Amino acid sequence: MSKGITKREEDYSQWYLDVVLKAEMAEYSPVRGCMVIRPTGYGIWEKMQQRLDRMFKETGHVNAYFPLFIPESFLKKEAEHVEGFAPECAMVTHGGGKRLEEPMAIRPTSETIIWATYKNWIKSYRDLPLLINQWANVCRWEMRTRLFLRTCEFLWQEGHTAHATHEEAEEEALRMVDVYRQFAEEYMAMPVVVGRKTESEKFAGAEHTYCIEAMMQDGKALQAGTSHHLGQKFARAFDVKFQDRDKELKYVYATSWGVSTRLIGGMIMTHSDDKGLVIPPKLAPTPVVFVPIWHSDEEMNMVLGKAREITTGWDPLFFKIDDRDQYKPGYKFNEWELKGVPVRIEIGPKDVNNSTVVVARRDTGDKATVPMDGLLTHVEAALESIQKNLYSAAQKRLQERTFTVDNYDEYTERVEGGGFFRVFLDHANPAVEEKLQEDTRSTIRCIPFNAPDEEGPCMITGKPCSGRVIAAQSY
Amino acid sequence: MSKGITKREEDYSQWYLDVVLKAEMAEYSPVRGCMVIRPTGYGIWEKMQQRLDRMFKETGHVNAYFPLFIPESFLKKEAEHVEGFAPECAMVTHGGGKRLEEPMAIRPTSETIIWATYKNWIKSYRDLPLLINQWANVCRWEMRTRLFLRTCEFLWQEGHTAHATHEEAEEEALRMVDVYRQFAEEYMAMPVVVGRKTESEKFAGAEHTYCIEAMMQDGKALQAGTSHHLGQKFARAFDVKFQDRDKELKYVYATSWGVSTRLIGGMIMTHSDDKGLVIPPKLAPTPVVFVPIWHSDEEMNMVLGKAREITTGWDPLFFKIDDRDQYKPGYKFNEWELKGVPVRIEIGPKDVNNSTVVVARRDTGDKATVPMDGLLTHVEAALESIQKNLYSAAQKRLQERTFTVDNYDEYTERVEGGGFFRVFLDHANPAVEEKLQEDTRSTIRCIPFNAPDEEGPCMITGKPCSGRVIAAQSY
Repeated sequence: MSKGITKREEDYSQWYLDVVLKAEMAEYSPVRGCMVIRPTGYGIWEKMQQRLDRMFKETGHVNAYFPLFIPESFLKKEAEHVEGFAPECAMVTHGGGKRLEEPMAIRPTSETIIWATYKNWIKSYRDLPLLINQWANVCRWEMRTRLFLRTCEFLWQEGHTAHATHEEAEEEALRMVDVYRQFAEEYMAMPVVVGRKTESEKFAGAEHTYCIEAMMQDGKALQAGTSHHLGQKFARAFDVKFQDRDKELKYVYATSWGVSTRLIGGMIMTHSDDKGLVIPPKLAPTPVVFVPIWHSDEEMNMVLGKAREITTGWDPLFFKIDDRDQYKPGYKFNEWELKGVPVRIEIGPKDVNNSTVVVARRDTGDKATVPMDGLLTHVEAALESIQKNLYSAAQKRLQERTFTVDNYDEYTERVEGGGFFRVFLDHANPAVEEKLQEDTRSTIRCIPFNAPDEEGPCMITGKPCSGRVIAAQSY
Repeated sequence: MSKGITKREEDYSQWYLDVVLKAEMAEYSPVRGCMVIRPTGYGIWEKMQQRLDRMFKETGHVNAYFPLFIPESFLKKEAEHVEGFAPECAMVTHGGGKRLEEPMAIRPTSETIIWATYKNWIKSYRDLPLLINQWANVCRWEMRTRLFLRTCEFLWQEGHTAHATHEEAEEEALRMVDVYRQFAEEYMAMPVVVGRKTESEKFAGAEHTYCIEAMMQDGKALQAGTSHHLGQKFARAFDVKFQDRDKELKYVYATSWGVSTRLIGGMIMTHSDDKGLVIPPKLAPTPVVFVPIWHSDEEMNMVLGKAREITTGWDPLFFKIDDRDQYKPGYKFNEWELKGVPVRIEIGPKDVNNSTVVVARRDTGDKATVPMDGLLTHVEAALESIQKNLYSAAQKRLQERTFTVDNYDEYTERVEGGGFFRVFLDHANPAVEEKLQEDTRSTIRCIPFNAPDEEGPCMITGKPCSGRVIAAQSY
């Protein structure tokens, strides 16, 4: 049975779109540039939220909620920020049938409204650090959209913290990019390169930006999370000072950090295959599905009864028994494969007689006949193995497709084929990045942490550089 | 130490505002009519979400996400709906620096965008029922706002389901209002009256609306949740038909149902007191706080060490040890009382020597000296007792302040003093409700389920009515 999914090697972009649509992850809405996140996709976002939220709380953060609307005048208070975001804003001009005195933007990000609020909350060093996160929708008017990766409205979390010193803010920005790294590796099974953005790629209003960059199956980079050290820029723009222990009034230091529903796109492009979606078990809303097989009502009662019996006491959100009678088993196999459920369990009359079931893995397609006795333990082990296997495969690809190149012609030729390129580029010079972008549609993804101590000439200008950067084409 | 909270008996409205602000639940934002939900308030909303979401999933629902923006033309497709909501909408007219061809409303509720989408999802009886919920922000332009109870933007969930038959939709609408009742009683410790709204009070676009109505401490009603049977109105407006088993094309039946951050206001006005917030333990983000008492560094190390020792293995989100050294114990007692933490545990040097702690309950203020050994069991029992006690007190108030009245003059006089009034009113006649509202600023809150079979003359017109309704002033 064909699922109508284009093969990756034929057309990677079309494959991605096919998987998103056919697995019912998301679709374009009647509203231009906005998506509908369907239950299959939203269930994964919920899992991501749960995992991340726990990690935020364990690092001392609490959640809050700030208004959707940002007065135009707020956006203008930080010069770089308004330049970066104003052109992308959706504007509310009327409310309750009347023209507003001041137009309001739908938040493209919430630094301004939050710092206007923090001004009232921060008076003394006793009020610091302030460690707050928000789960919210944001809106950035995009011309060319792609489901999950770039849409006018998307869902995200944005952390906004306030600190007494530069050092503490720096620690926080680093802590949170590391939380993102951990989350990507442990839950998404997606290895990442961690580093710092160049001046031209940093967040509008940041001193510097840290990021995690993942490699998709086509070798392109996906920026998966960013953490910004904002210095005192927003504190100055909104006049947020605190009285320090030494009784002096000082401006507060800030960070902000975020990941979005874009992660779902990254997950798809890291693990899925020509048969459809592949979900890492730790993000699967329903890790296990039972497909009972019957040919008569009597058999139906037997296999369904048995499936219910062996799952007694299991967490009801851990598994589903697909008892729909309007579909045949083959249709169901296909559907759950397409939707990426990590483990499928087949149970027919013969299995019931033998006290066994067939356990099929989504990642390798392997099937094994397994005794009903101890099934939960077996399934949990299989899920763990799938999680590890997905990570290893992605890690192997990242390693194999990371290249060290020193010649610009060679780079120009090879970058089209995908991969991360360890190169010398004088990123202090904006002209270098402009030329790179124009010649190759690639960018410096980051200045990686923990890179070996190397020196060499910029591929473009020949100017001596210390340390290689990662360059690649990206989403 | 005064907390600066107005007493309830002096000015109930001001008391409410004081509690919300001083307990740092929420505050007005710089954006007109919008609130900032602070961490103390948002933590309670998260607990509500977790509990409700679990109940929705256990009744077969899944979550999804639909666009924030609703094209103006969509709103206009259902006549009653646009009449009800258009005047309250915030409108986006510009995006990405350009005027939009069609203005878009910020969703006041999502029936229209969702039914425009369901049209593509529903083809056959096999696709039904469709049981979807959305957690989202919505916006209704309000002139007079009150924190949590009525703000321009608020957070909520909205369930939107599709069914093959009128009976199934009716079952769903009833099931969900019962989920709300259960949630209110079991988690919020807030008894409610369940019933049906009158024609003039039902949702704009519904066939009929079910609701739960709670009584606040001042005797006023708070509509805490609604569940609508929408009939085929939205299916007709958006042309959503399915092929039934009998091969005929039929319009789909719909329900929608929602609760919002307004519940937080209801929780406050049900349980809190002149000392501040009181949180039912099942909704407390942190049910237990330890306040260690010390007078020297040596004592500090001793009591903090002991507090950490006895909480080893406890869920880190279940308790907090308030180890701040910039505040004295008295300040901390006050703060946690104000913020409604259900159980406070005091531990000083003498307690450590005696292997005891002092356990203080927020609801009664009772303090007990308790052995450290078995503390967790003791605390869990105390939390359960608090939850029950809060419910009983609220239940008692609801019973004591529900009155049966048959004379309109008596009603007019007494309704000002608060309470639910079991009365005969001819709610089929819109003029009756108009007069009621004008004369007494009260409304029919609902036609209650499970009411005794009674007949009597309408208080206003004298027309015979069968069954009493609940009338009250309300928030």
